[in-house]
Amino acid sequence: MVVTQNKEVRTDRWPVNPHVKNLQASILREILKTSSQPGVISFAGGLPAPEMFPLADLQQALIDAVAKYGADSMQYSLTRGVPLMRELLAKRATERGTKSEVDNIIVTTGGQQAIELIARTFISAGSYILTENPTYVGALQVFNYYGAKYAPVAMDHEGMIIDQVEEKIREYHPSIIYTVSNFQNPTGITLSLERRKALIELALKYEIPIIDDNPYGDVRFAGEPLPTLKSIGGDAVIAVRTFSKTIAPGFRVGWINGPKDILDYIEKSKQCIDLHTSSINQYMLYEYVASGKLEPHIERIKTDYREKRDVMLKAMEEHFPDGITWTHPEGGLFLWVELPSHMSGQDLLPKAIDLKVAYVYGQPFFPDGSGLNTLRLNYSNASHENILTGIKRLGKLFKDHM
Amino acid sequence: MVVTQNKEVRTDRWPVNPHVKNLQASILREILKTSSQPGVISFAGGLPAPEMFPLADLQQALIDAVAKYGADSMQYSLTRGVPLMRELLAKRATERGTKSEVDNIIVTTGGQQAIELIARTFISAGSYILTENPTYVGALQVFNYYGAKYAPVAMDHEGMIIDQVEEKIREYHPSIIYTVSNFQNPTGITLSLERRKALIELALKYEIPIIDDNPYGDVRFAGEPLPTLKSIGGDAVIAVRTFSKTIAPGFRVGWINGPKDILDYIEKSKQCIDLHTSSINQYMLYEYVASGKLEPHIERIKTDYREKRDVMLKAMEEHFPDGITWTHPEGGLFLWVELPSHMSGQDLLPKAIDLKVAYVYGQPFFPDGSGLNTLRLNYSNASHENILTGIKRLGKLFKDHM
Repeated sequence: MVVTQNKEVRTDRWPVNPHVKNLQASILREILKTSSQPGVISFAGGLPAPEMFPLADLQQALIDAVAKYGADSMQYSLTRGVPLMRELLAKRATERGTKSEVDNIIVTTGGQQAIELIARTFISAGSYILTENPTYVGALQVFNYYGAKYAPVAMDHEGMIIDQVEEKIREYHPSIIYTVSNFQNPTGITLSLERRKALIELALKYEIPIIDDNPYGDVRFAGEPLPTLKSIGGDAVIAVRTFSKTIAPGFRVGWINGPKDILDYIEKSKQCIDLHTSSINQYMLYEYVASGKLEPHIERIKTDYREKRDVMLKAMEEHFPDGITWTHPEGGLFLWVELPSHMSGQDLLPKAIDLKVAYVYGQPFFPDGSGLNTLRLNYSNASHENILTGIKRLGKLFKDHM
Repeated sequence: MVVTQNKEVRTDRWPVNPHVKNLQASILREILKTSSQPGVISFAGGLPAPEMFPLADLQQALIDAVAKYGADSMQYSLTRGVPLMRELLAKRATERGTKSEVDNIIVTTGGQQAIELIARTFISAGSYILTENPTYVGALQVFNYYGAKYAPVAMDHEGMIIDQVEEKIREYHPSIIYTVSNFQNPTGITLSLERRKALIELALKYEIPIIDDNPYGDVRFAGEPLPTLKSIGGDAVIAVRTFSKTIAPGFRVGWINGPKDILDYIEKSKQCIDLHTSSINQYMLYEYVASGKLEPHIERIKTDYREKRDVMLKAMEEHFPDGITWTHPEGGLFLWVELPSHMSGQDLLPKAIDLKVAYVYGQPFFPDGSGLNTLRLNYSNASHENILTGIKRLGKLFKDHM
């Protein structure tokens, strides 16, 4: 019966689209494979601390969800998201300064799918995207698939250097402005209040949507809270949010808060892509959040991450040689290292792994291909002891190659 | 601070892609809204029977998954899928006649995402797809987004009329052959064994991948089991599978069984689209399936659906006037009605809803736009009593309009 047994199937002659064939596998995921070798202390990942996941409370949330919503909790549901969840997200956004209706919310399969849906809506081959240089590499991967070009804007300690933005807009006419405004991945830098206001003014003047990719905003453990771009800019801003960094990534539940007419388009795209986000996961997380357990949980995460950041910063002070600089993030998961310009984060990585410590080199985060002398360190997913040991090893490596 | 309060945000001037703007909302979803009015007996949906969901066993599976895998169950996981789950799926496929390695499996966010990923891989503007006429409307929606054209092949009671296939291949050079070979949505028809073999021969001869969208294959409640296209055709076939119809749709866990090199492309696309499918859902369903609970559960579903189908068929015999024909499915969720050629399923639907009964009219399932005199009935999601009452109402409606 196996008619193919005598006949070769030439899958290499099947008509695979060139822009799929040319997709780069995420460099991060490649590095993660290397860095997961036994004995390697890894600052490479972007994983939230697993020891913080509220496992028991989430088990209870499932039991409650099944008891309350029965089979509805596991049935097909609306593309826009489970209504209870959308109401909760709109209410919470409103309480936090972003006036939102239920129709301003669409639940997505993680923040990554939100980026995909937004890119599908606005980006076609040759569209320019104005973005920070560097920026989130997982967004660049999506934008590249859609054939985007970039108008990258350099950063300083207050985020995107705003004086360059208007000039770039006039030169490149970008379709969207993409920013990770809070504790940015990869740099840990936060856009200042003055620049938030200025960026929104420019977006309004030139009628360009701002995509505020904000997975880390709720995890501020130092400094003064700033109003979100969305709360300042209203409909001028499409906010991408997620529970991945506040509850756990494995649920793949994120959401977009944006103008209703734009979400109508996004809803139709999402219908094609996966019909809807897991209903059981929406009901579970709804029960967890509605029961008031999220806020105290986030406080525990903040304490944990602040301590880890402090351990890392202190170790860097002690062990990194002069000529190396780094950021001091007030939240999120990452900090960012600049080596002297003659040193390469990529070239040093194999030597670091020989020393049993790993990081992500910075260059892939730069839309303009620069940043050879940079690297990203994650502190959320390592013990204090490993942070100390790993930073000491990196310090030795850097000293040896100064 | 709200700088937008005196300034209108003209989202209508944002650069929304035309092919997103032109996406049709699913006609099915529109009909579902109408048919969910109180008192309407609906045969319109495609929902599995919610009273069959194994709620308690799935609660237990979550408790077991969290106990065994701890925080891993909620952490980021591999794009290709949780290894345990992929091993289980490969093993089960092999046991059922499709020799599969772990690398032949990628877990997807439901079967719908599998279709999206395959379309992204193979379809670009102007690509032809050879498909049954009619076929699954949710696949047409995806294919339309990618700019597909169609080479539709008429069906009889044995599925796609195979004599037309080679001619269509020569005329249109399709990029893929898309088929729902088992208990097709919408018709309930199953492709015969001879035609399966013939279709694979043609696919091999012309080097065209067959996409076998097979969500219902495990729910055969009558007749003789047939080998799947995949088990006959090996690497010539890419199989789309899902737990939506055997466990519950709300988990959004499906998978593709296909050639490794093609899955490598699909993996990179999935990385862009949602990073990975919910880890907790994969671990839950793994625990449920690995514990041996799925097989007896599927037997219960088969009994339930066979009884419902029988009640519906008997009521149709009794109440539908001469001149109307329908299919006798041996599995799955749907049967298919052909009215006399002068009658329109679409025109009759509002009158049916006046009589408090709903169905989906058939025309949207036809890539060639024909099928005005057809309609689809779902029997899985109605009680015996409602089936009797609803079919009686439809019988009256049809008699009045013959």
